[in-house]
Amino acid sequence: MGIVVQKYGGSSLADADAIKRVARRIVDIKKAGHDVVVAVSAMGDTTDDLLDLANGVSPLPPAREMDMLLTAGERISMALVAMAISDLGFTARSFTGSQAGVITDSVHGKAKIIDVTPGRITQAIGEGHIVIVAGFQGVSADTKEITTLGRGGTDTTAVALAAALEADVCEIYTDVDGVFTADPRIVPSARKLDTVSYEEMLELAACGAKILHLRCVEYGRRYGIPIHVRSSFSQLEGTRVSNDARPDAQPDLQPTGTTQGDTMEQPIIAGVAHDRSEAKITVVGVPDKVGEAARIFEALADAQINLDMIVQNVSAAATSLTDISFTLPRTDGQSAMSALARIQAEVGYDKLLYDDKIGKVSLIGAGMRSHPGITSKFFGALASAGVNIGMISTSEIRISVIVDEASVDDAVRATHTAFDLDADEVEAVVYGGSGR
Amino acid sequence: MGIVVQKYGGSSLADADAIKRVARRIVDIKKAGHDVVVAVSAMGDTTDDLLDLANGVSPLPPAREMDMLLTAGERISMALVAMAISDLGFTARSFTGSQAGVITDSVHGKAKIIDVTPGRITQAIGEGHIVIVAGFQGVSADTKEITTLGRGGTDTTAVALAAALEADVCEIYTDVDGVFTADPRIVPSARKLDTVSYEEMLELAACGAKILHLRCVEYGRRYGIPIHVRSSFSQLEGTRVSNDARPDAQPDLQPTGTTQGDTMEQPIIAGVAHDRSEAKITVVGVPDKVGEAARIFEALADAQINLDMIVQNVSAAATSLTDISFTLPRTDGQSAMSALARIQAEVGYDKLLYDDKIGKVSLIGAGMRSHPGITSKFFGALASAGVNIGMISTSEIRISVIVDEASVDDAVRATHTAFDLDADEVEAVVYGGSGR
Repeated sequence: MGIVVQKYGGSSLADADAIKRVARRIVDIKKAGHDVVVAVSAMGDTTDDLLDLANGVSPLPPAREMDMLLTAGERISMALVAMAISDLGFTARSFTGSQAGVITDSVHGKAKIIDVTPGRITQAIGEGHIVIVAGFQGVSADTKEITTLGRGGTDTTAVALAAALEADVCEIYTDVDGVFTADPRIVPSARKLDTVSYEEMLELAACGAKILHLRCVEYGRRYGIPIHVRSSFSQLEGTRVSNDARPDAQPDLQPTGTTQGDTMEQPIIAGVAHDRSEAKITVVGVPDKVGEAARIFEALADAQINLDMIVQNVSAAATSLTDISFTLPRTDGQSAMSALARIQAEVGYDKLLYDDKIGKVSLIGAGMRSHPGITSKFFGALASAGVNIGMISTSEIRISVIVDEASVDDAVRATHTAFDLDADEVEAVVYGGSGR
Repeated sequence: MGIVVQKYGGSSLADADAIKRVARRIVDIKKAGHDVVVAVSAMGDTTDDLLDLANGVSPLPPAREMDMLLTAGERISMALVAMAISDLGFTARSFTGSQAGVITDSVHGKAKIIDVTPGRITQAIGEGHIVIVAGFQGVSADTKEITTLGRGGTDTTAVALAAALEADVCEIYTDVDGVFTADPRIVPSARKLDTVSYEEMLELAACGAKILHLRCVEYGRRYGIPIHVRSSFSQLEGTRVSNDARPDAQPDLQPTGTTQGDTMEQPIIAGVAHDRSEAKITVVGVPDKVGEAARIFEALADAQINLDMIVQNVSAAATSLTDISFTLPRTDGQSAMSALARIQAEVGYDKLLYDDKIGKVSLIGAGMRSHPGITSKFFGALASAGVNIGMISTSEIRISVIVDEASVDDAVRATHTAFDLDADEVEAVVYGGSGR
């Protein structure tokens, strides 16, 4: 009888029929006695259409106006979902991010939620309405400007609402059945995970699994919101993300027909993630003196570039020169190269190398902590598949390697098999993920 | 150096090129030293597209959600206009109706503006920005819900903003050159009026001239805002609506090349309007007793139906029965007939007749007051053209007749010629008008 928060992405709201199907699903939860709050993305291609319009009038539109434009997309879909619910005999109230009390900082295009004041939502719930909220958007605390949350924003809206409303669960509806042990387009025998811990999901999201956005998972972990990732095209149980990585006691939402029972040992490895969005920059011949490396990373930080993996070779004693390599989003490649070129004279390095034909393959699992030998098994699998390792980075529950972009698929498959993740039967899935 | 408020309708914002053209026009006013505030409608077909989406999910969408949906249209166009202005090197800030302080009552779909609190607009003007406001929309005073103003709403938004900002002029940009002495599609020799008084414009708007919405003109008259109706597709002077029906002293916006000088005598007749949107209902055989007619009009008022012309025949002494005829919008025909059918037993009338093959032709001019013989000249022209008159109604500055729908064009042409309104040369115009 608690509050259920749901999120529907653009692929689940592609047309009138899809919207009606979503409305029926929402009404079913209401009929079961729950209060329902739904965060929606823009319909299917709406965002692309709006971007095309913007490009038609200006090559470099101001971020404030771009946010004003794009937020029209969720406004349209939320009103249509509310109408479809009304057509089923239930009442719904739609609210913009601003009306819903989604307060953000003032960084247009990638604002962060700093508070949620859901007074109008709780009032509407109290009056018996189903509540539909525009995802991906908010209003800035200081300037009262409309903001957008950036990629995956509607997931974050949903979890933030769930936290503010102390919801029982946050259901993220998407076009796949849940979180898989690997991308099923690469590994057809990948298995759907019934449960995964927040920390594993964080690593998966950070390492390229597109199903849940990083900030959404962070938010869920911070406030202890159970997240249920599932398909809007089926009634199957999806993947539950929570602290204990075990289904908790929610009789009404208990999974049925799970393939792993509670008595089975938690598997060591949650999955194999891959990411083809990074590039590698190598700064060759950096004088091996205190402060030179710091100067390089300072210049990159000033250019607002987030680095991922960083490797510094041991200095060759004869020359006192060293090489520094790091990976970063390809989209930041040009500005990073420019920032570094500007400090060449100051730092005195030799040259810059840029490589965007790389990929990252990551093995993730909380069980790693207590199981030695994971690294050697991982590297052994890669070696057997003829995959060369370029860079390595590790966390407590993750091992990531940089490989040639062309070797990514082979690396993922070999690793998936080596850790016994392959399912007996191949599940039919469509793997994708909506932008917001 | 004052504030100029402009309004651009959907046909002026049909696509990216149209939006860029509008942006250049706005920037020109800014360059001339004025502060500019612009109210925009939704782009071309956007509203129809949104209505199609709504019909796709629900045959009878709730009015609140319909307003939420439709207001996305102006949000899109205002952001695009702001982007196009930015691309010209000027800064623009777009604001929703709510942000702009357009406060309305809470009647979704046809809300009335009750106040304008333009704090954010004046702040943005003070910072040197061009301000773009979403037309057609506001926020309700009591419930803080998003509302729309109904047909012609953006015109009303523009004039209300002009009043609140004490603007020098409110320019209504449309796809025709101004207000004409008749619809040029019917009368190719119709002339553009250089000036027209508020009261004449009110009668023209009420009698079917679609160029300016009634509420916009009422607002302009109440607050004394000079309205300039002109084409966004040319630089021609349009029609100025004001109290004195004479160009007033505004050096920067002075009309040039007007066809009528200030020395000419003000013409008696402003124009001939027509309206094919009405129907006629006749209640046959009403007992000629005190209170029976009142009961009929009470029932119609309860059904929220606005009547236009009303005629009660003199009772035939032999029967003590009378016929009551009235005209009303065709869209209200069905509900009016239902409301009357429900009281047949109570009132004891004989039967109802419904006729939607009628048209209204109106002759409008402030000069009528001081010129006798207008009525006989009007009716003589109609008789010569073989047009039968069904019903008649008059005001101080207007004579309206109901005729067969098929005779409307002939009636308009004959009247236009009889009152010497035909121009020497035919101006090339496209006559239409945007929905908002």
